Amino acid sequence: RFDPWVGKIPWRREWLPTLVFLLGEFQKSRKHCQEISHISILKKRTFYWSIVDLQLNRIIPRDHSRMGIVHVLTNKCVNIIQYKVHQMTFSEEHHVIVPRNKRKQENNGSTCLISIYKKLQTKFYKRLDSKDPLTLFQHRVFFFSKKKKKVFNSIFHALTGNKITQLILTGVYRDEVTNNMLQPGDQILVIEKVENVSLTAPPGSDDAKLIDIFYPGDQQSVTFGTKSRVGMGGMEAKVKAALWALQGGTSVVIANGTHPKVSGHVITDIVEGKKVGTFFSEVKPPGPTVEQQGEMARSGGRMLATLEPEQRAEIIHHLADLLTDQRDEILLANKKDLEEAEGRLAAPLLKYCGLLPGQCGAGLRRTQIAKDLELEQVTVPIGVLLVIFESRPDCLPQVAALAIASGNGLLLKGGKEASHSNRILHLLTQEALSIHGVKEAVQLVNTREEVEDLCRLDKMIDLLIPRGSSQLLRDIQKAAKGIPVMGHSEGICHMYVHSEASVDKVTRLVRDSKCEYPAACNALETMLIHRDLLRTPLFDQIIDMLRVEQVKIHAGPKFASYLAFSPSEVKPLRTEYGDLELCIEVVDSVQDAIDHIHKYGSSHTDVIVTENEKTAEFFLQHVDSACVVWNASTRFSDGYRFGLGAEVGISTSRIHARGPVGLEGLLTTKWLLRGQDHVLSDFSEHGSLKHLHENLPIPQRNTN
Amino acid sequence: RFDPWVGKIPWRREWLPTLVFLLGEFQKSRKHCQEISHISILKKRTFYWSIVDLQLNRIIPRDHSRMGIVHVLTNKCVNIIQYKVHQMTFSEEHHVIVPRNKRKQENNGSTCLISIYKKLQTKFYKRLDSKDPLTLFQHRVFFFSKKKKKVFNSIFHALTGNKITQLILTGVYRDEVTNNMLQPGDQILVIEKVENVSLTAPPGSDDAKLIDIFYPGDQQSVTFGTKSRVGMGGMEAKVKAALWALQGGTSVVIANGTHPKVSGHVITDIVEGKKVGTFFSEVKPPGPTVEQQGEMARSGGRMLATLEPEQRAEIIHHLADLLTDQRDEILLANKKDLEEAEGRLAAPLLKYCGLLPGQCGAGLRRTQIAKDLELEQVTVPIGVLLVIFESRPDCLPQVAALAIASGNGLLLKGGKEASHSNRILHLLTQEALSIHGVKEAVQLVNTREEVEDLCRLDKMIDLLIPRGSSQLLRDIQKAAKGIPVMGHSEGICHMYVHSEASVDKVTRLVRDSKCEYPAACNALETMLIHRDLLRTPLFDQIIDMLRVEQVKIHAGPKFASYLAFSPSEVKPLRTEYGDLELCIEVVDSVQDAIDHIHKYGSSHTDVIVTENEKTAEFFLQHVDSACVVWNASTRFSDGYRFGLGAEVGISTSRIHARGPVGLEGLLTTKWLLRGQDHVLSDFSEHGSLKHLHENLPIPQRNTN
Repeated sequence: RFDPWVGKIPWRREWLPTLVFLLGEFQKSRKHCQEISHISILKKRTFYWSIVDLQLNRIIPRDHSRMGIVHVLTNKCVNIIQYKVHQMTFSEEHHVIVPRNKRKQENNGSTCLISIYKKLQTKFYKRLDSKDPLTLFQHRVFFFSKKKKKVFNSIFHALTGNKITQLILTGVYRDEVTNNMLQPGDQILVIEKVENVSLTAPPGSDDAKLIDIFYPGDQQSVTFGTKSRVGMGGMEAKVKAALWALQGGTSVVIANGTHPKVSGHVITDIVEGKKVGTFFSEVKPPGPTVEQQGEMARSGGRMLATLEPEQRAEIIHHLADLLTDQRDEILLANKKDLEEAEGRLAAPLLKYCGLLPGQCGAGLRRTQIAKDLELEQVTVPIGVLLVIFESRPDCLPQVAALAIASGNGLLLKGGKEASHSNRILHLLTQEALSIHGVKEAVQLVNTREEVEDLCRLDKMIDLLIPRGSSQLLRDIQKAAKGIPVMGHSEGICHMYVHSEASVDKVTRLVRDSKCEYPAACNALETMLIHRDLLRTPLFDQIIDMLRVEQVKIHAGPKFASYLAFSPSEVKPLRTEYGDLELCIEVVDSVQDAIDHIHKYGSSHTDVIVTENEKTAEFFLQHVDSACVVWNASTRFSDGYRFGLGAEVGISTSRIHARGPVGLEGLLTTKWLLRGQDHVLSDFSEHGSLKHLHENLPIPQRNTN
Repeated sequence: RFDPWVGKIPWRREWLPTLVFLLGEFQKSRKHCQEISHISILKKRTFYWSIVDLQLNRIIPRDHSRMGIVHVLTNKCVNIIQYKVHQMTFSEEHHVIVPRNKRKQENNGSTCLISIYKKLQTKFYKRLDSKDPLTLFQHRVFFFSKKKKKVFNSIFHALTGNKITQLILTGVYRDEVTNNMLQPGDQILVIEKVENVSLTAPPGSDDAKLIDIFYPGDQQSVTFGTKSRVGMGGMEAKVKAALWALQGGTSVVIANGTHPKVSGHVITDIVEGKKVGTFFSEVKPPGPTVEQQGEMARSGGRMLATLEPEQRAEIIHHLADLLTDQRDEILLANKKDLEEAEGRLAAPLLKYCGLLPGQCGAGLRRTQIAKDLELEQVTVPIGVLLVIFESRPDCLPQVAALAIASGNGLLLKGGKEASHSNRILHLLTQEALSIHGVKEAVQLVNTREEVEDLCRLDKMIDLLIPRGSSQLLRDIQKAAKGIPVMGHSEGICHMYVHSEASVDKVTRLVRDSKCEYPAACNALETMLIHRDLLRTPLFDQIIDMLRVEQVKIHAGPKFASYLAFSPSEVKPLRTEYGDLELCIEVVDSVQDAIDHIHKYGSSHTDVIVTENEKTAEFFLQHVDSACVVWNASTRFSDGYRFGLGAEVGISTSRIHARGPVGLEGLLTTKWLLRGQDHVLSDFSEHGSLKHLHENLPIPQRNTN
């Protein structure tokens, strides 16, 4: 049995839809028709369509291939079918007026239609089956009302513009006629009025749980709500129909096509494999869904947070031991992934681990609000973190150790290129966690959800941490709707060489900042030099050093104007080279340097080299960057160097955590208020209490 | 002179486009055609179109109305024009093969086309001018390649499906032929390859500044870059053409139609009035643009931050005085806005102001990293805040005072309903700011940009603070791409009445929490009662009190099962009533209560009432909410009550600031590193330095 969805989205990517059912609401149908025609052009696919009208309950056999049929049925509706085969024009018009008797209209409608189909089939089947690729469909539509004419005009155009070779109209597709009409491998998309299918209870009620993927094997757990709410009955019928279709080998997606914000894209999203609607499939994927993983991480994280700091430290030390013991296996897995220099994985981790204290739960502030009313602010874990990292698998144990130390649940999404390494590292992490029974607190997401799908889980994830390129950060910032994102974008670091800079220091600092590891985000990108220093021995010395180190120099516009020949092609001043390349620009003053940094920098790390303390302090106070440095290398801008222990990353965002972020970046606070029957009215004008707002001593913080 | 854009977006809303120019790239044209046909259905409008091909340089007069013409020209191209007027079919095919000689192809192409147009005009003008509304266009296209045939097939369908009555093909529209073709009131949309028009320098270079709106009066400030880069020449020609069109009374939008992420929506966005592309208009809006305001707030904020805390306090006190002095004028303006009870505006502000300390710049941490290498972490302002508030104008001075106290630049966007109040309050704020020359630090956004437009200014705004409904927060979270958002969503606050609760306290606490001000986000919504307390005098006492206070009771499912008659209709347990309504549910234990709160709560404020300290501490530690309270009213969850001074809001987000947020929520940190020629290699294995990472005493913090 062929199921093209199997092995996709999880199993939906690159599917080949054969049937698309559309709800028979004109307003939305117009949109959907436009969308399908759009997609069918983009994807260069032929779609089989169905305009579903709930007034109808018949499906038309799919062997009418090459026939263009669109049926629409309303209370007072007309069906017009027109077709044209290549050069030969044949036109037949069917006017079908459905009686206004509502109770009878279903049967009447379908009877009428079936007679039309039969007629068509008898009359034109052979001709329509012509193999001529130039077959084009043409239409003319007449309606009683102008409005409807307009609507159908557009539907017809959208349909016929895309060589739709079969257009099928149906409602509930479950009767003796339809039994043989669906073929294994067909897929059905039902556009509905609700977000997903809610099976456990009426949608909108407390226990209603939207279902992403439904497997028939799970059916025993389904109980439809006893009290039918709006839309519930219809949904039940549709779910049953979907299950029936599934028995015949036809997968079904039921998705919301009427939500104002998404209806314009729902079909596109599904065709592109996004996780939209409820997918009915016979093939159950291995392992838990990402939603289940999120729940495991949440409850595991809560258990982790209740452990003593020593217990969390034990887990981390055990992880460190495991990483050492299993070094060979890790490197083997890593080798399988065909990347990363060997030994890079385990070695730095141990060093970091040794530094991790269990800081969570520390008191930050205590206030006596009034007599017997005491307020305390304490640190607590953020909740569930989703860390998305590219290629480098050594990120995994580092991030896991940070999450464990801070008491957070963790979802990890690694790159496919490092899947073997990630798998073994995650197994070791879970092994370490299991010594205190919190194995589930760290989850590796293996399902095929794309980053964009994960970013939608805003009820499940409290903080998103991208670890990778600044493009990854930007993509995630765009995709994350409502979930805060912590990450670093580019590091365009400057070094301002002031006129009172010491000759020896400058060369050392520039070399260290630029040449030691030019790919680092805290490496130097632009040297700003005071005009007075041009054509001095100091300047020559810097240039000589850069030549020896084979650093390619780019001249800023002012610097270039001093030169007879520009040393290299001009690049925008706001460039992160990440390589042995350096931009040099001339400035007139410390203020000029600051202005340049504010205009072209990325607020990461900026340095002044000078012996003048006053100028240095001016620079330190006025440069609006995460790290501002005096007479030291840019490269010190790093969590380990700053003594923060393991590093979450270097944040260029301005809230929550800025610059090198240690464990504290994974903590938030909560307020505890302890009273004795305190109410606001006690504090009113004639009340018995007054606000004191006295600071109380903070309990000693347990560092190291 | 009629300009339908005037008075819109700023002047673009509900415009009536008459010409749409599309770039002659086939791939994108397909998309755009789909989109336009989509829009023309949705908006019920007729659009005049133009398929632009850069190989061509002619525009076709618009008085060819009712004629369906599509021209396409490529290196080896064929033009086929077909039209059909109502029942009367006329078909003419023009095969025009453009020579392969590239240098000549422009002229040849246009010559060919012009001859076609002339022929058409002579032959069919009258017939095509028929007023018959049923005019439909039909097509048949033959191409040399199948691929092109397919593409144009779809274009034609999209075009003809929407009663496009004039389809115009053009490139550069500036010659003697076209001079009289544009009519005043026409609008042109040019779909380009770049984001906006960059006039000051080649796009992508350092000084390139994307221009949102271009006024001919500003033209003197425009200098095209001397070195032409890729695409620059074409853009210059287009800008000149746009200016020429503008002289004739035709407004022009040049927008990016090829960006992969936006190309599918660019026309829709422009038609919907979003701020996309560069708008060429003759009518200059009053006042600065929002981008200029952002820059003013940035530089004003930086100046503000360099003031002494005492100076900032002076500004705030002066503002407080002004608010008192100008009380009558404020209330008059407020009355004009026909809302808000009088006196509500100024009175609470003064109280808050008295509490504001100038905390910015305080040291948080000092570390001796190594010999002579010292790290300091200090608080600094976040930068530029955008506060979007609904209706309540009393928010303005409060927020302004907070921004001033914290040294942040501020953009304020208020509701239209309170525009008079906002205007006078903003004027007073600027008056207060001007005593220290920082008038521009607080800006009121008066332009018609929608919230969504403002949320795109990610380079300008560092933190977005919505003050209003939770819907506003959700909308902004969706719109804010990359800008962090701080705001509160709903407050579904619980009170758990434990079996060992004191009888007297419970009634007092429930009354205060629920009845004092039920619309507050920190008001009680759900009372969880231990099962043992049902049918006890304590329970009857609570119910009696609620009856006296006229609180409508909703029963949770478990509580309902204890009752013969459910007191009120069932609502989802996760409901914020915001009114004199209370949900009551029964729980079996403190763990059961915690589980309920985690499942149905909003992590805002949750209370336990008990005399058992152990149970209370368990609840305090395990409930995962911003504020967890023992034996006190939910209503204490408030910045003023907590002694934080003025309140930024109550944050339900988990990062940066959580729960009641005071001034500190508007501060971030920066790291200052002071060294003496320190480089990383000093710390290598054979280096002379070792990391010390010793905590140094923190300079005393200046509170109050």
